Amino acid sequence: MRKIIAIGSIALDDVETPYGERKGAVGGSLTYFSYAASIFSEVALVGVVGKDFPQEILAELKEKGCCLEGVEVKEGRSFRWAGVYRKGMEDPETLKTELGLFQEFDPYPPESYKETEILYLGNLSPSLQKSLLSRINYKIVAMDTMNHWIQNNREELLEILPEIDILFINRQEAEMLSGETGSFPSCLKLLEYGPKTVVVKRGEGGAIMCREKDVAAIPAYPVSKVIDPTGAGDSFAGGFLGALSSGRNYRQALAVGVAVSSFSVESFSIDRLRGITLKDVEARLQKIRELVSF
Amino acid sequence: MRKIIAIGSIALDDVETPYGERKGAVGGSLTYFSYAASIFSEVALVGVVGKDFPQEILAELKEKGCCLEGVEVKEGRSFRWAGVYRKGMEDPETLKTELGLFQEFDPYPPESYKETEILYLGNLSPSLQKSLLSRINYKIVAMDTMNHWIQNNREELLEILPEIDILFINRQEAEMLSGETGSFPSCLKLLEYGPKTVVVKRGEGGAIMCREKDVAAIPAYPVSKVIDPTGAGDSFAGGFLGALSSGRNYRQALAVGVAVSSFSVESFSIDRLRGITLKDVEARLQKIRELVSF
Repeated sequence: MRKIIAIGSIALDDVETPYGERKGAVGGSLTYFSYAASIFSEVALVGVVGKDFPQEILAELKEKGCCLEGVEVKEGRSFRWAGVYRKGMEDPETLKTELGLFQEFDPYPPESYKETEILYLGNLSPSLQKSLLSRINYKIVAMDTMNHWIQNNREELLEILPEIDILFINRQEAEMLSGETGSFPSCLKLLEYGPKTVVVKRGEGGAIMCREKDVAAIPAYPVSKVIDPTGAGDSFAGGFLGALSSGRNYRQALAVGVAVSSFSVESFSIDRLRGITLKDVEARLQKIRELVSF
Repeated sequence: MRKIIAIGSIALDDVETPYGERKGAVGGSLTYFSYAASIFSEVALVGVVGKDFPQEILAELKEKGCCLEGVEVKEGRSFRWAGVYRKGMEDPETLKTELGLFQEFDPYPPESYKETEILYLGNLSPSLQKSLLSRINYKIVAMDTMNHWIQNNREELLEILPEIDILFINRQEAEMLSGETGSFPSCLKLLEYGPKTVVVKRGEGGAIMCREKDVAAIPAYPVSKVIDPTGAGDSFAGGFLGALSSGRNYRQALAVGVAVSSFSVESFSIDRLRGITLKDVEARLQKIRELVSF
């Protein structure tokens, strides 16, 4: 039985922020997720990538205990995204989305991926997410989504939510999907759609989690320079599920998500995240405990 | 020696939110501040109000232990503000601001107000705030400000900040004044302008406080229906300074500010705030402790 199977994009990003610019930087939801989750647990990846993607990154993930049997390396171009984070804005302006090999992404995971404790469906079309639910046996399934699917594939999205254990969603998306204002009212409404746990990511407001009658909220760890917010949400989900997989409870997982994503934004791409150890996360968790203590 | 002297507006508000509408509701920064602070300590008010303002509110504040010697009740119209909070928006659209008697507000506090432990300068023009600093002896001075003064009276504002112990400011204003993005970078920059402590209020992100090397952050208490956000910041400041005045430390004061403002937004005007007791605040503080625990 696998610990975590994660499915998503592996990409090359052109990113511009008020702190600088990067061309062809390592990115993708699965990449950020896997670096984050592998701090805590074993991740088996499902993805597709071109030969234009730096193969040493795949090698590094293997060294970190990830299984890449489910990652196809093909002739062709990797998923490419370009965006600008303008000063004062939390969300990027997307300049370019080239799906490349990801266009045809409809994976049948290998035999060794048949069963997992945790299945993570990154930001994919709801219809692909639905198909994937029947291709892998899981104990817990978590997913992310985005404004594009909420606007254009709302019905399919609502159809899979009752199957979902943990929904990760950001504040704007939560408001869009629920029709409510504010992350907490949105969270409550989204629970009615079926997921057992809803986690709303809210930038410097950190994250709020509703789960049955339980509500938890952790402010973001104060980062003096947010160099590049790309991948913050995926790192959050990776930290959260990695922690859960390694035996921590949901509240601890929430705090780990906040801690790990705070490292991710301290540099472009995965520069900071790739060097983070369990000890670093523990130290930051301690600082978050001090931050909220009164 | 007074415990707290607070100076600001006493107003009548027309407010519309997604939950309804109120005409001529009791409002004003000093009003919200005083209801909040009087849960913890004795507040001596400095303000001006017309006979159109419900006198039973002034009587109620007296019953709560406030001193109204510094409040002039005059012929003429009270400060009036009208605004709409549209669905999904955190900030109101101002429809009307009629200063009325507040236009000429330039108070010389009565003899019994000569000395105070805490002086609170509500959202007033920086030049009036400066004058007031020399009219009352204080141990600790705190102030609030707003976008209008930051845009139009920036130099005068920067001139008084070195005199200030505690600056209360919301996120948008903090970013505008500091030129930074995000409440934490803004907070750090604003400390360089002179205040000993900077507290940035950030809606559902709660509040973050920087004070020398110490940083504290508390998420907002999750309110399922924010009926009317008017006065949230003033209730926050009132709770914060009331708590400080009654012997709590800065971190505890921050949490009290978050707790008290969460009551304030649960109804229009002061409807909910006026009935809140110390016991209610303690109960909510306990819930906030549980909220952030992991």
